[in-house]
Amino acid sequence: MAPLAVRLPAGRGPRYSRATMSNTPTLPDLATLETPALLLSQPRMAANIERMRQRIATLGVAFRPHVKTAKSLAVAQAMLGAASGAITVSTLREADEFAAQGFADITYAVGITPNKLGHVARLLAQGVQLRLILDSVAAAQALVQAADAFAAPVGVLIEIDTDGHRAGIAPADAATLLAVAAALSHPRVQLLGVLTHLGASYDCRSPEALRAAAEQERAGAVQAAEQLRAAGHAAPVVSVGSTPSALFAQQLSGVTELRAGVYVFQDLVMAGLGVCTPDDVAVSVLTSVVGHQRAKGWTLVDAGWMALSRDRGTAAQPVDQGYGLVCDVAGLVLPDYTVIAANQEHGTIAHRSGDKGAMLDLPVGTLLRILPNHACATCAQFSSYQVVDGANQIQAEWPRFGGW
Amino acid sequence: MAPLAVRLPAGRGPRYSRATMSNTPTLPDLATLETPALLLSQPRMAANIERMRQRIATLGVAFRPHVKTAKSLAVAQAMLGAASGAITVSTLREADEFAAQGFADITYAVGITPNKLGHVARLLAQGVQLRLILDSVAAAQALVQAADAFAAPVGVLIEIDTDGHRAGIAPADAATLLAVAAALSHPRVQLLGVLTHLGASYDCRSPEALRAAAEQERAGAVQAAEQLRAAGHAAPVVSVGSTPSALFAQQLSGVTELRAGVYVFQDLVMAGLGVCTPDDVAVSVLTSVVGHQRAKGWTLVDAGWMALSRDRGTAAQPVDQGYGLVCDVAGLVLPDYTVIAANQEHGTIAHRSGDKGAMLDLPVGTLLRILPNHACATCAQFSSYQVVDGANQIQAEWPRFGGW
Repeated sequence: MAPLAVRLPAGRGPRYSRATMSNTPTLPDLATLETPALLLSQPRMAANIERMRQRIATLGVAFRPHVKTAKSLAVAQAMLGAASGAITVSTLREADEFAAQGFADITYAVGITPNKLGHVARLLAQGVQLRLILDSVAAAQALVQAADAFAAPVGVLIEIDTDGHRAGIAPADAATLLAVAAALSHPRVQLLGVLTHLGASYDCRSPEALRAAAEQERAGAVQAAEQLRAAGHAAPVVSVGSTPSALFAQQLSGVTELRAGVYVFQDLVMAGLGVCTPDDVAVSVLTSVVGHQRAKGWTLVDAGWMALSRDRGTAAQPVDQGYGLVCDVAGLVLPDYTVIAANQEHGTIAHRSGDKGAMLDLPVGTLLRILPNHACATCAQFSSYQVVDGANQIQAEWPRFGGW
Repeated sequence: MAPLAVRLPAGRGPRYSRATMSNTPTLPDLATLETPALLLSQPRMAANIERMRQRIATLGVAFRPHVKTAKSLAVAQAMLGAASGAITVSTLREADEFAAQGFADITYAVGITPNKLGHVARLLAQGVQLRLILDSVAAAQALVQAADAFAAPVGVLIEIDTDGHRAGIAPADAATLLAVAAALSHPRVQLLGVLTHLGASYDCRSPEALRAAAEQERAGAVQAAEQLRAAGHAAPVVSVGSTPSALFAQQLSGVTELRAGVYVFQDLVMAGLGVCTPDDVAVSVLTSVVGHQRAKGWTLVDAGWMALSRDRGTAAQPVDQGYGLVCDVAGLVLPDYTVIAANQEHGTIAHRSGDKGAMLDLPVGTLLRILPNHACATCAQFSSYQVVDGANQIQAEWPRFGGW
């Protein structure tokens, strides 16, 4: 068997080798966990939060973090630096969970459907200041029909399509914008402005493209709000955002609020965009070596797609990270090793080159960590975070929830 | 807007059209659900179970259903036709959940890692007859080291690699087989035989290939068991299986036990293999139309990858079903419509041809169903099944669990 030959970028510390592995601190806390388990590095999360806090301060807008990535009270509080505050959610289940913990200012950023309006009424009756989004006269009419049963006014943001990638009304489509605004006529329905999410930023391949995408998002949202204002609607809220646009926007004039979520953990897709590095990724899946297929150069681990998710968001990026990038138990990235295949409860690790002689030949039971392609998808496979400090001591177990 | 032009296979009932949609029974039960929701058709599940029961009877082997697809007590009991029985699990969490419900004969069919041996000891102390699998001397030694703490003997099956797709020892590799068998020397460790799973059957493209794969699986497992017996090991258990091999095996001489799981629900990957048809698929995701992008031919729904999973198992099959195949609310397949893209909580439906004029132009709030590529992955995104009868009336809500 050839010795391990793992290339590390310069300046990343000692060459990683079997000898280094055996000298790895014993990490007694991590050895008590059954694998797979979801680890959350509190120092990395704190650094990601501080970076975004500084960006928001520079940009001079309100911040409404998206809690869909973490779905955790403790993480949301860390994002806000407060016990509660304004948040964005992707499901009414998130709204329920956070409302129960005292969060009273919630934007549900998925187009509202009629069968959720009873749920909306319950949240309003609980005192939640809820904002919904929609992009059609039909959805506006359904909301107005239900509003007689609302105990308090519901806010509405018209969804704007600034990149053609999903839902929303084009910023220049004044006729549709005004028709939707006109349909929102009810004493308990308040048109508050516009919301957009430029998801196409995930396809950018350079800082210049990310900056241009952020400007496109800003300009489109502001244009749409101005169309509403020109027709006499107040439209005080102009909400934009994603982690890439938050971190790459040069200026946000006309924008009142920014949303972002994945920044709190970061992931390999973000690293592939240049938004962060793999060393900024705060979540990883702890896994054990189950066995080997040495003739193929494979190391089998007990993190399959059930733990890692089926997300292959790096597949279309310049560096394909398979189902995730491998680190040693202490979190040191082994840049040449990825999870090349995944079954339900098995992952297959191989050298990026396909060199069988360079396989990760570690004993059965060796602990490794896998960085996720997409933090939202990977975290969703777990019911809690094992929160570790900089010395990989477990500080807490934070529950998370899923579902609708 | 061009009228709907959906081609249906001959004999599938009336042509599907907007007029048909408006005549769809009102399905009051389904209209009470918030979307997305996971539906389970009890008649389809019952038919899938009966088909497998007949196959097992014909093959003349014991059956040990895999509960990893359903992770539901009620479904497992339906699979067994009994309150409890022998089962296969993919996680020790499944073992815990089923043991708590009186299941006492459990095979954990993922290679055991050292950090799970305390958990194994707890299950044995509860009286569970537990069988583990492993494929290396190192894993056998770790088990033997832990066995002093076991309250009762644990069964071991050596994992056999019959297709080169994952873990296991090659059937002809007598040296490794016998070394592992020799390492399993402890009064509370019982070598019971061999286990294999020919996952490569999922890559088959014809009934002939599926039959050949099942025979390859059978022959390899039997060969490995015979190697053990020739060296004096009893090896009474020869366990094989997957849904394709269960349904395509011509004979299973020498095999004592068959495992299968996904058959209970079936899915589009199985339909693509020819194992079933889309009309056999018992689970679907109920979703609502959120809006449209008519210039692109898109219908947006509230089932994204969080509901459908990121599984793209049909991508490599002759018919790519995107993130799932669309049905009307009553379950009638609309064969030309698939979910072509998925964000976290949004799915994008378009005509298979890309013909924008043939878009599924249904009102906001219209309920649809999406058949999953991979039932194991899609069901894992939900915490319960809404169980419906043949008239789409909700009969029960069955909880399911996840995690480790």
